[in-house]
Order: sequence, then C-alpha cells, then structure tokens
Amino acid sequence: MIILGIDPGLATLGWGVVEAERSKQQLIDYGCILTTPDMALPQRLLAIQRELKALLDRFHPQDIAFEELFFAKNVTTAFTVGAARGVSVAVCAAHTDHLYEYTPMQVKLAVAGHGGAKKEQVQQMVKLLLHLDHIPKPDDAADAIAIALTHGAVGISKQQFLMK
Amino acid sequence: MIILGIDPGLATLGWGVVEAERSKQQLIDYGCILTTPDMALPQRLLAIQRELKALLDRFHPQDIAFEELFFAKNVTTAFTVGAARGVSVAVCAAHTDHLYEYTPMQVKLAVAGHGGAKKEQVQQMVKLLLHLDHIPKPDDAADAIAIALTHGAVGISKQQFLMK
Repeated sequence: MIILGIDPGLATLGWGVVEAERSKQQLIDYGCILTTPDMALPQRLLAIQRELKALLDRFHPQDIAFEELFFAKNVTTAFTVGAARGVSVAVCAAHTDHLYEYTPMQVKLAVAGHGGAKKEQVQQMVKLLLHLDHIPKPDDAADAIAIALTHGAVGISKQQFLMK
Repeated sequence: MIILGIDPGLATLGWGVVEAERSKQQLIDYGCILTTPDMALPQRLLAIQRELKALLDRFHPQDIAFEELFFAKNVTTAFTVGAARGVSVAVCAAHTDHLYEYTPMQVKLAVAGHGGAKKEQVQQMVKLLLHLDHIPKPDDAADAIAIALTHGAVGISKQQFLMK
C-alpha cells in the first residue's frame, strides 16, 4: 500500500511517500512544497493546491495521513496555517476518502516507541526503519515520512484515525 | 463589471453577485453554500470547493471580494474557519488574480455610511441600494452582497484592498 504523509504548512509543506507491506516499509520519495512571503496569500494557496495535486497524480497513494493541528501561537497564525491545511485536505479529499490524522505524540509513540521522544530520536528511527544512509532533510520532509510510517504501523484500528 | 462577494465560513458560506456600473449596482443572484457537522471535514471542504467553483463557472466574476477574518473565539475555531476560507481563496485564485478583502468596518462604512453601523442598518441599505422589495436572507448572503457592494463602491484605490 502506498501512503502519503503530509506535514501541512503555508511556507513549507513536508511530504513523504512510503510503501508499506505487512513486514516492511520502503521509502519511495519525499520533499517539500515551498511558498515564500513575497507571494500573495491566494497565489501561495494555489501553488500548494497545484503541487499537491501533482504529487497525488504521480504517486497515487491509497491512504493519506496528516499531522493533526491543535496548536498555534495565536489566532492570526491559526488562520493562515488552517488555510494551508484546508487547501491540502480538500485536494486530497478529491483523490480519496482515506484521510487520516495523527497527533505529534502518536507519531512519536509509533515511530520512536514513546510519546515524549525528541525530534532527533524520531528522525533517527525514520532512518533506521527505512534503512537509509542519512536522515532525510529538511525536517518537515522527515516529519512527513514519520507520519506516513505511523499510519503504516497502525493496524486494525485505523478507522479511529479517520479525519473527522 | 460582475463582482462576487463572499462571506466565508465552514457551515455557511454566503455569496452575492452584483453587477456594478459607474452609476448603479444591480443584484444578479445570491445564496449560501451549506455544509453540516455530520459530514467529515474533508468532505465539507471539498463541497465548498466544488460549489464555489460552480458559481465561478456560472457567473464569471471579474472581481471577487472577501470579508477579512481577524477574529475567532479560539485557535481551534480559527483552524476550521481558516480552512474553509483557504479553500475558498484557492478556488478563486485559480479563476482570477483580482481578489480583494474588506474588514466588517469597511463594509459598514461603505454601505451604511459609518463604521459603527448595526447589522440591520447594513441590511436595510443593501435593500435600498439594490432596489429590492425585501432584505435578502439568510444573513450570510446579505453580508456577502454588502461585501460585493463595498467593492463596487471603492474607486481608484482598489489596489490597496488586494488580498496579500
């Protein structure tokens, strides 16, 4: 099964594609969709929509896993982060109903074994689990891969992580 | 010129289409895009995206005016309101670069003559300015028409209201 993991954001949207079988998981590709503050908000959102759509057309993921948002510095930040995430979710919803979300703690627990794991520990585990010779960069892409791995590791209880 | 006014929201997105000439403004159509909490968030966002796209294809607005968001009860609300608005902005950005935004106070000032006008006064002015025999319902649609009227009333300084 092909899983797309997404760490949503306006300036940087991390993505990672993992092929998950019963016994092993394999990294297919990863990267970031970048937009810069010199672009107007509508063009940034449109760029995210188009580039993410291109990824869906390229990798045809069966399941898509997002990092769940529940924190922002303030309401203004929440508006723009929410906007970028909303655009990403809508594009993916046109592709499949199989959209899932995981909190950072669930990702840490699934990938590094405990919910209080540090970012570096999660990244080391991403490298180990996927037999890579280096930690994927930038961080947002590594986070997205960890989200995809989390979804791959979740067994029969996937239904509970469906995005509501 | 055809102007589409949008009062964005997740449960209710109000819209109003106004034809604005130098000397008069005419109401073309108005309504709401509704989604309900029994739908999952991805399907709600997708419904907004598709229905708004259908409106753009139907009315071909040259300019699109949004109500500017700057308040939410809390960060969680801001995420979902921001998501609905982000989806709306991205759909419109694929249609035109002419996206504008106005604060509620700017709308009150433009339509009712003073920034502290009450909702009812704005609605009465919408009825008067467009020579209607009743106030358009629901409120979100009337608000969207007021936003379109505001954009129609703004003269050479439109540039300053371009969405950034």
